[in-house]
Amino acid sequence: MTRDLRPLFDPRSVAVLGASNDPAKWGHWLARGAVKGEGRRSVFLVNRNGGEILGREAYRSLAELPEPPELVAVAVPAAGFEEAVDAALAAGAKALIGITAGLGESGPDGRARELAVVERVREAGAILLGPNCLGIFDAAAGLELGSNEVVPGSIGLISQSGNLALELGLMAAEFGLGFSRFVSLGNQADLEAAEVLEDFVGHEQTRAIAVYCEDFRDGRAFARAARRAVEAGKPVLLLTVGGSEVGARAARSHTGALVSELVAVDAACRAAGIQRVSTPKELIDLAQASLVRDLPRGRRVAIVADGGGHGVIAADLATAAGLGLPTLGPDLSERLASVLPPTATTRNPVDLAGGGEQDFTNFERVSRLLLTSGEVDSVLLTGYFGGYSQYSDEFEAAEVAVAGRMGAAAAESARPLIVQTMYWSAPAATALRQAAVPVYREIEAAIGAVVRLADRALNPPRGIPGLPPPVAPVEVPGSPADAYWTARRLVEEAGIDLLPARAVTDRDEACRVAVEIGFPVALKALAGLHKSDAGGVALGIDSEEALAESLADMTTRLSTEAYSVERMARVDDGLELIVGVRHDRRFGPVLLVGLGGIYAELLGDVAVTLAPVDEEEGEALLRSLAGAALMTGARGRPALDVAAAARAAAALSSLGAAHPELAEIEINPLLVLPEGALALDARIVAAEEGDDDAR
Amino acid sequence: MTRDLRPLFDPRSVAVLGASNDPAKWGHWLARGAVKGEGRRSVFLVNRNGGEILGREAYRSLAELPEPPELVAVAVPAAGFEEAVDAALAAGAKALIGITAGLGESGPDGRARELAVVERVREAGAILLGPNCLGIFDAAAGLELGSNEVVPGSIGLISQSGNLALELGLMAAEFGLGFSRFVSLGNQADLEAAEVLEDFVGHEQTRAIAVYCEDFRDGRAFARAARRAVEAGKPVLLLTVGGSEVGARAARSHTGALVSELVAVDAACRAAGIQRVSTPKELIDLAQASLVRDLPRGRRVAIVADGGGHGVIAADLATAAGLGLPTLGPDLSERLASVLPPTATTRNPVDLAGGGEQDFTNFERVSRLLLTSGEVDSVLLTGYFGGYSQYSDEFEAAEVAVAGRMGAAAAESARPLIVQTMYWSAPAATALRQAAVPVYREIEAAIGAVVRLADRALNPPRGIPGLPPPVAPVEVPGSPADAYWTARRLVEEAGIDLLPARAVTDRDEACRVAVEIGFPVALKALAGLHKSDAGGVALGIDSEEALAESLADMTTRLSTEAYSVERMARVDDGLELIVGVRHDRRFGPVLLVGLGGIYAELLGDVAVTLAPVDEEEGEALLRSLAGAALMTGARGRPALDVAAAARAAAALSSLGAAHPELAEIEINPLLVLPEGALALDARIVAAEEGDDDAR
Repeated sequence: MTRDLRPLFDPRSVAVLGASNDPAKWGHWLARGAVKGEGRRSVFLVNRNGGEILGREAYRSLAELPEPPELVAVAVPAAGFEEAVDAALAAGAKALIGITAGLGESGPDGRARELAVVERVREAGAILLGPNCLGIFDAAAGLELGSNEVVPGSIGLISQSGNLALELGLMAAEFGLGFSRFVSLGNQADLEAAEVLEDFVGHEQTRAIAVYCEDFRDGRAFARAARRAVEAGKPVLLLTVGGSEVGARAARSHTGALVSELVAVDAACRAAGIQRVSTPKELIDLAQASLVRDLPRGRRVAIVADGGGHGVIAADLATAAGLGLPTLGPDLSERLASVLPPTATTRNPVDLAGGGEQDFTNFERVSRLLLTSGEVDSVLLTGYFGGYSQYSDEFEAAEVAVAGRMGAAAAESARPLIVQTMYWSAPAATALRQAAVPVYREIEAAIGAVVRLADRALNPPRGIPGLPPPVAPVEVPGSPADAYWTARRLVEEAGIDLLPARAVTDRDEACRVAVEIGFPVALKALAGLHKSDAGGVALGIDSEEALAESLADMTTRLSTEAYSVERMARVDDGLELIVGVRHDRRFGPVLLVGLGGIYAELLGDVAVTLAPVDEEEGEALLRSLAGAALMTGARGRPALDVAAAARAAAALSSLGAAHPELAEIEINPLLVLPEGALALDARIVAAEEGDDDAR
Repeated sequence: MTRDLRPLFDPRSVAVLGASNDPAKWGHWLARGAVKGEGRRSVFLVNRNGGEILGREAYRSLAELPEPPELVAVAVPAAGFEEAVDAALAAGAKALIGITAGLGESGPDGRARELAVVERVREAGAILLGPNCLGIFDAAAGLELGSNEVVPGSIGLISQSGNLALELGLMAAEFGLGFSRFVSLGNQADLEAAEVLEDFVGHEQTRAIAVYCEDFRDGRAFARAARRAVEAGKPVLLLTVGGSEVGARAARSHTGALVSELVAVDAACRAAGIQRVSTPKELIDLAQASLVRDLPRGRRVAIVADGGGHGVIAADLATAAGLGLPTLGPDLSERLASVLPPTATTRNPVDLAGGGEQDFTNFERVSRLLLTSGEVDSVLLTGYFGGYSQYSDEFEAAEVAVAGRMGAAAAESARPLIVQTMYWSAPAATALRQAAVPVYREIEAAIGAVVRLADRALNPPRGIPGLPPPVAPVEVPGSPADAYWTARRLVEEAGIDLLPARAVTDRDEACRVAVEIGFPVALKALAGLHKSDAGGVALGIDSEEALAESLADMTTRLSTEAYSVERMARVDDGLELIVGVRHDRRFGPVLLVGLGGIYAELLGDVAVTLAPVDEEEGEALLRSLAGAALMTGARGRPALDVAAAARAAAALSSLGAAHPELAEIEINPLLVLPEGALALDARIVAAEEGDDDAR
């Protein structure tokens, strides 16, 4: 369902309910903003007491208006919210903004009231933003319905926090950035982040989209909308939270503990091409970077500084961040030297050694030579540029002119120029930004921008995978033993190899089965979810005596009669992986792969992606692990059958995706061998009440 | 040799040689600064043409001065440098500042001229700063001899780069910070970083010392001076470079490749208690943090925000940075709730939920309750504080007053309060800083400050180890085989266990030795430095046939007749480490320990420290490895003899420290077993010409 949000962003008429002359009240701020749009639309101020507001006659009710108000902003107290919404719908409103707080966020009663309101809004074919939101802004539509002034610009902002939006605005303004649109999400009772984001895709004035969101609702739909925005050439930058839940969730199952809330978000971000950040500053730094004309086609960067330390510091940081600083070729180096003082270094970093101070046009010459050389993918200027302007008007004019030509050089070369200078707010810095050259205050921010831009260019998103058609749900048995056999059956039906295993309950049966299967065998007690943690797994049992001993020991310790006797794998030849699918309540099924055993502990090496994946995507995911070298024959180890592991991961991802009633399905370990991959254990966990999948 | 630098920092008289009226010249800037100190000292402006400079009669030469100039600033062209210095010494100067460029930094000739000058300076009992430096500043002494205005404050700055000092000054000023002293090091022809730093230890007005240094000269002396400063309660913050040399040096030996220039610096920093940073911003952020009254006694932090997103974002970052966010106890939680609105959350993070806006004193109440609770070691306030001041003078006065009382609460509790606010330059922010409460612009900077302060409190530096008395130097044989046997002998003499090994040259000899030693054996070809990389090591050879085959194969491939047959260790029971000592040309002997084999590749897990270490320090170093769990019995692995490994590391560190003629001595692998530790290989590399040790 795609609804038309035009009545919200560019209404033909606006009414402010609860308009007020009191400068400390929402009714005042909304009215003050609304009347700024009087040139474009009818604006009606409504107050039950009538009278004059902001020099205009106020209406006593919506019923009195001379025409239907297409958008109604509601800032009445919570008690009057339903009445106000009903009045707005009766008056013909197609969109509502609920500033009113104290509903859904206050508890179950408020939520019920909110849901009832939303039902009536939708029946009337209208839309509701909020409630508990801080309004809306659209620069091109001349629409201002909020508490604060918004600086206009080219970033679209969707935020679930008012104070953060304010901070982002302050930080953005320092760098000459502003907002094409701002939407405060509030409780997302009707309009959710995804639907709002979707509307930004076609918004001409929006060149990049910034989102602060804590509660994604239908995260998969959010990811799909973001993907469309990215495809439309509008980078999506996401500031979100959830990393610190890792600790709190550690008590849950392995996959559960490894996949924090943020990890599912990251899977969605990679699939959609969303760039995730962790702080307001990172968001604004990246927003500035997003306005470059061209992305770098690789990680090679030339660093230019006018004097000592700056170049070396930048070179250190760039190298540490994974950028390449190629030594410049002799021809290029010579051409650089020909315009610079004899003490200049012209390899990389390039030190102008006063050559910029002597002649500002050297900044342009050097930038142009580097940008068009083909030897690097981007150029980073660091240090003092822009600072000469403080000495004279003439210097200022010269620096500003050079800045413009540096921007032109970048545009002509189709490569980005990124600048850091201690005079980041000087006129020349502004001129650079106007020429689509980002200018940073801190060298780490500039380096980060180059890295992020290169990442974006070199890692195209895979897109949001569709979900498989629903299949008959699996009932997860209450008994751990039955759950184990069900998990094995599911894994086997998915075409993943397992070693022979048989249920046994006592010593005699165990020995009979072991002889049949052939020693050595493994013995598992099926007494709970975490067999090996609880000492419920014995490996490499090579005789009936040893088997009897292990069984007796487990029976004493674990008080269970349910066991599995299984054929032993040749573990030494292979590598243990963890492969699991978890249903995230917002982003749906997520596939996790990671190194198992001791490596899991040492490296915490996991990779995640939205499920399902095909074999190729599964293999790419496996190869993205930090410890991938363990599978590919490093240090004289045998090369392992990564393709077989990828097939297993792909099969499990489809299986998990088709079973939203399973909160988790996990193979741990999946043993990757020189030939083939074997599930040595399997586990399923039923979804809890309220864990509903975001389909 | 500790020299008295008083004539440099607080001279009784100053002469500026080459003083000028031209506002674009050094001679002008120096003169302009010098005359500001006329109230404190005699100031003489010298210009060979005489005349009037800055309204004062200029002297034609130093010989004309009415009294000896204690300090002479020299800004003449390079050609006249020697003459100027000689004239200054002849006139009785005790200190000289060489602004003049074009000497030591211009090449070998310039360096020779510089050395000759230094000799004459030292003979005269004088000191020389520079040449090629940008001057000096001492706020308390009213001494200004530089090109730029310096904002006075409590940070002492020593810098090898002028532009970086400028940037640091600009960044510092934004946060109300300034400099007690500034010294531009220049070429360090006479005065080196260490001696300058040493003088800052006793400088009363300096509360923290910031250093930008690329070239440490006697790094060990620098570390000792820094240690004394830290012990005197003055944090030392070091911005330096060298990280990107890792790549360039990768071709060198293993230890060499692992120990970048920066790693040696880091070893010195940990020993001295120096806090290293990578960017100007990090330095200024840390300088602000360094001015707190009290360090946190642990990593537990309470986060306070007035509204939604800020608290959660801070909590995520804090957790990711290793800080603890304890859930606040019920009593404390209740006391917080009693002063806050009902919607406030009072666990951790604390969300005032508008309670700060309602009543500014709640910021103080909540801060004080948390600071004095004993439940956390520091308090972090994030968000909007200070922003209310923009609405009225009354609000401003109230916020400033509350800020002062928040600082008092921190002082009384002897715990730090750290603040981040989007209004980081508001009057209330200034008031907080005046009360020794750091106020940051970005949340990541505030979190970083808490982490750095906790690190400082919880990791007291070990101090700079003394070097052992020199022993008879070892001649490193030119032949790889002889070098190997020499290395083994040194390791054995140091008391480190090795397995039996014997030199052999052919098949018959090899078999005879193998039978004597007992199969299985290891065979090593002694053809070059990197035996195992070149396929020159065969392990687990269990028969004469297999031995003969390996030998024949190596002979074909490596064309050598030098082999070693060695007893095989039970590698599966243990863990392979790398232990090595490298002589850093600045910081002297450095001990490196790391995981060997596949782990080295996966984890890049190394730890370094200044050598020598005792057994206890060696064990602490080993236990600081990320993979230390592999030695301590994780996941059912046997617990290994860490103490034995530590004894071996300590012994090697003493051995290496006593042999500066060895650039490197390395045991790779050192096999740590459940009982004992065995050197399975040993290697020495002679120091190259110019690799002289910083003793």
